[in-house]
Parts: sequence; structure tokens; C-alpha cells
Amino acid sequence: MAFWKGLFNNSSNAIAPSSTSSKEEVLLKKGETQPETKILFSTTRSIDLYELEELCDAVGWSRRPLRKVRKAMQHSFLVVSMWEEKGASRRLIGFARATSDHAFNATIWDVVVHPRSQGKGLGKALINYLIKCLRQEDISNITLFADAEVVQFYNRLGFVPDPEGIKGMFWYPD
Amino acid sequence: MAFWKGLFNNSSNAIAPSSTSSKEEVLLKKGETQPETKILFSTTRSIDLYELEELCDAVGWSRRPLRKVRKAMQHSFLVVSMWEEKGASRRLIGFARATSDHAFNATIWDVVVHPRSQGKGLGKALINYLIKCLRQEDISNITLFADAEVVQFYNRLGFVPDPEGIKGMFWYPD
Repeated sequence: MAFWKGLFNNSSNAIAPSSTSSKEEVLLKKGETQPETKILFSTTRSIDLYELEELCDAVGWSRRPLRKVRKAMQHSFLVVSMWEEKGASRRLIGFARATSDHAFNATIWDVVVHPRSQGKGLGKALINYLIKCLRQEDISNITLFADAEVVQFYNRLGFVPDPEGIKGMFWYPD
Repeated sequence: MAFWKGLFNNSSNAIAPSSTSSKEEVLLKKGETQPETKILFSTTRSIDLYELEELCDAVGWSRRPLRKVRKAMQHSFLVVSMWEEKGASRRLIGFARATSDHAFNATIWDVVVHPRSQGKGLGKALINYLIKCLRQEDISNITLFADAEVVQFYNRLGFVPDPEGIKGMFWYPD
């Protein structure tokens, strides 16, 4: 059984995006074998689009044009990545991003955790990291649209469906 | 009873925002008195923050710091304003904005129509104008969070609540 040491450390980053504070955080996993496995969360690490596509393929998402994925990432307020590091090897195991007006509202999109890394509390850690980053930027209204099967997951993380009767709505062309 | 001539005309604009096409559209209202009243929709007209605050006051919204309102508008993908023009006088009677990743998703916020201008189809025209602008920018997923009392209004405009069980969710601090 994995033992997670919830030590969050700040470390410096070479690249700082304009809109969010420069930050990485580390979860240490005490492995039975060496080298030790680290889980790293970042808002600043550059993400290879093909590696991201592989991650999205792994959870069965429909493919999207990489040109548009790049544009969406560039125009997201916050892009969070989660990495598994063993010695020199590093693997992208989670991703999420948020759009925002930089003042009041943020909306979380494209939350993905690799199937091999699910069921270990890492999705929860990823979302909590994202929330912490948004709160640091003084965003008070954090929203998302949850597929039916993950409503309970988000509910446990503090997200409330339809508060005061507010409904999430999607426009469909005629 | 007002008679609305649904003639949408394009006209040129001096200021074009980076992310959206430069555009204004006009609805002509045949008034019983002269001069003729025009309703004008714009993505480019500059908006006086105090006039916007007055509009939001008129519908009873809580006041927000103008510094943050300005920031939110600057970082919105699209800001739409609706104006009533009679001769040389011009009045802000409607407003809406959308955040976006400029690629896939947009979320509409802060939709307001002055009480004196409600019940005339202008809210509908404002949202349809906003949708048209977003579609021109190739945004496929147009979303919003509707207060309970306006769910039907948006439903009539093509917005579907909870499609396929997707739930709008809001994060609340512990």
C-alpha cells in the first residue's frame, strides 16, 4: 500500500507565467524499491503536447487538433500538470486547466489523471493544488461542469452542484 | 407597443480588440416620436465603468470594486454592450461578457439589461448577438451558469440545463 507523505514544498522555477505565481509542489511517495518516487505539481513546467495527447488517449477522450489545444493552453489562466518522477525519468500523469477573468470567476476544464495513477488520491491532490493556486490569485468564484460520474468526486472536494438553484447550461445550435 | 425592425447592419469601428472581430450591429426601433430610437450592439465600444455600475445598481446587484470590474473586462474574451441611441444621446442599457480559452470553451457572465428595457426582446437579442460573435470566433462550447429564475429564458435561446447529466458546480471554502 502506498504511503503518501503530504509534505508540500515550494521550489523556484525558471519560467513564471504572467498571470499566476511561480510554483511547484512535491508529494513524496515512499517506495518499496529505490529510487524514491516523487509526485510533482506545477503551474510552470512546459508540457509536451504529444505527451498530453497520450495522457488524454489513455482515458479515452476524443482527439482534438493540437493547434487548438495549444491555443487553449496559452489562453488559460492556469495550467496545472502532475508528474511522476523516479530518478531521472519523468512522466506526465495528470493535467487540468482553468479559464478566468483574472478577477472574479474561474472555470476548470480538462481534468485528467492517468488510469494507472487513479485511486490513490492524486486527482484530489491535483484539484486541491489548482484551488490553492486560484485562491492565491484572489479568485473567489471557482466553478466547473462535472460529468455525472464525477459529481460525487468534486462534491467531496467542496464543490456544490446547483447552489441556490443555479444551473449549468450548454448552448446547442439549432 | 414597440415595433422592432430586426435589421442587423455591420458598421466599421475605430477600435478593434485583439481576440474578437470588430463589429457593431443595429436594431432600429420605429418610435412614435422623433427622433428615431436605435438599439446598438457592440463588442468594441468603450464602456464607462460608472455607467456600467449604474446599470448594475438598477437591477439590484451587489457593488463590486471598479478596479476588479475593469480587470475582469480586460481579461474577458468578449465584452458585449447594448446601447439606446436617440439623436445625439446614448445610454448603456445592456451588458454581458464571456471568458474563454479562445479555442474550445466560453462561459458567459454578468448578463444585465436595464429594467426599463426589459420585456422587449432585448435580452434575447443581446444573447443572440453574443452567441453569434462567439461562433464567429470558432468557439464550439458556449456555457453559462443561470440563476433559477432565468433558466427558462436561456432555455428558449437554445441553452440546455445539465445535458447528459453534466452538473454546474461551485466551490465553497470550508
